[in-house]
Amino acid sequence: MVETSVNRKPERTAVLLLSGGLDSTTTAAMARADGYSIFALTFRYGQRHSHEIDCAVRIAAAMGVKRHEIIDIDLGRLGGSALTGDIPVPKNRANAEMESGIPLTYVPARNTIFLAYALGWAEVLNANDIFIGVNAVDYSGYPDCRPEFIAAFETMANLATRATVQGQRLTIHTPLLHLSKQQIIERGLALGVDYGLTSTCYDPSANGIACGACDACQLRRKGFRNAGLTDPAPYASNEA
Amino acid sequence: MVETSVNRKPERTAVLLLSGGLDSTTTAAMARADGYSIFALTFRYGQRHSHEIDCAVRIAAAMGVKRHEIIDIDLGRLGGSALTGDIPVPKNRANAEMESGIPLTYVPARNTIFLAYALGWAEVLNANDIFIGVNAVDYSGYPDCRPEFIAAFETMANLATRATVQGQRLTIHTPLLHLSKQQIIERGLALGVDYGLTSTCYDPSANGIACGACDACQLRRKGFRNAGLTDPAPYASNEA
Repeated sequence: MVETSVNRKPERTAVLLLSGGLDSTTTAAMARADGYSIFALTFRYGQRHSHEIDCAVRIAAAMGVKRHEIIDIDLGRLGGSALTGDIPVPKNRANAEMESGIPLTYVPARNTIFLAYALGWAEVLNANDIFIGVNAVDYSGYPDCRPEFIAAFETMANLATRATVQGQRLTIHTPLLHLSKQQIIERGLALGVDYGLTSTCYDPSANGIACGACDACQLRRKGFRNAGLTDPAPYASNEA
Repeated sequence: MVETSVNRKPERTAVLLLSGGLDSTTTAAMARADGYSIFALTFRYGQRHSHEIDCAVRIAAAMGVKRHEIIDIDLGRLGGSALTGDIPVPKNRANAEMESGIPLTYVPARNTIFLAYALGWAEVLNANDIFIGVNAVDYSGYPDCRPEFIAAFETMANLATRATVQGQRLTIHTPLLHLSKQQIIERGLALGVDYGLTSTCYDPSANGIACGACDACQLRRKGFRNAGLTDPAPYASNEA
């Protein structure tokens, strides 16, 4: 009897932006579950710490990605952010404060630059799919995490490359866009994600202990708390 | 009597993509004539030769730009182009061949990546203007030199940054878009550009002598010939 593979989804190639954080790791698990063969792209962009890059390397291995590239880009040289410059990372901000305005940790044009590289790599790989773990619910006020930004980038991308001029259609996938942090965590756990591998903190210690107090730590801890789950990450400070 | 400065244009800040070639140098001269204070951005992107970067440094000095940043980005690592990989640069192509299709020297998503960096720097500088010397007449078939690509990038850029979310309007200036190579050269000479400083060739010798035969050399030589002018660049081969 000839074996059939009707229940197996065809393998397609996707470029995925992998930061080493909770969101991009969940996005990777979702892309994999959807049958994509993943080419992961991580940036060493002048951020304060290399811990999240070490995490990205371990996650890429655990996820079985086809290839993982770490690209050096010196955004810090152009300045303008608490994540790359010498402005301190804000800590212990109240919910209302976190939800208003754009924080100091915003990095000018970061997602535009990351997606531009992903677009170039996608074309080289003949891939029509890019995954990015942006989120418009618990999105920390970054303009380049909004649905209208992603839609405009996709429109531009479809005019930018040889592949699209020759008739291919590029899609930017944002499976987390309308999920809460709690829903993201629940989705990831259902897909077997080990969140102990992920790094979320904007300002971890040299050995990778999360501060527990920056906006990113607060959003993550709230997500686990709302889901009634224990966060496997080690924290320097107790829950606020 | 109080001196007035009604005839002096107010100085505005612009980020300009400067390759060291004829087009970006002419664009710089036009931006300067229009009263902009120029912050020039050049990329070492894995291209075969560093001669054009040396040219960019000399041009930036000659043009009196406020600041010149040279950013290292390794596009060659992602592959896919004769300008960064090991595909040979095509030579002595006929006009009809040059005008059809997208050449091997196309670098995937190059202008998208360059403009993304320019956008980030513009935001840090609080600049609302970006200049790029793309051209849709003698444009060598690159998809990311077309007016529709530039327009889509500008739309995206105006959704991407803190500055634009807060009400600023970013403009991508393409003053060469509808000029022929001859018109570009004539415009530059009228503004005092020294084209002896510029590098156009895709495949120059180690000491910066242009090959004279690649698409870029052919377009440049035709531009000078049509203008009835002598090209100050040194060439390895005689005019075809």
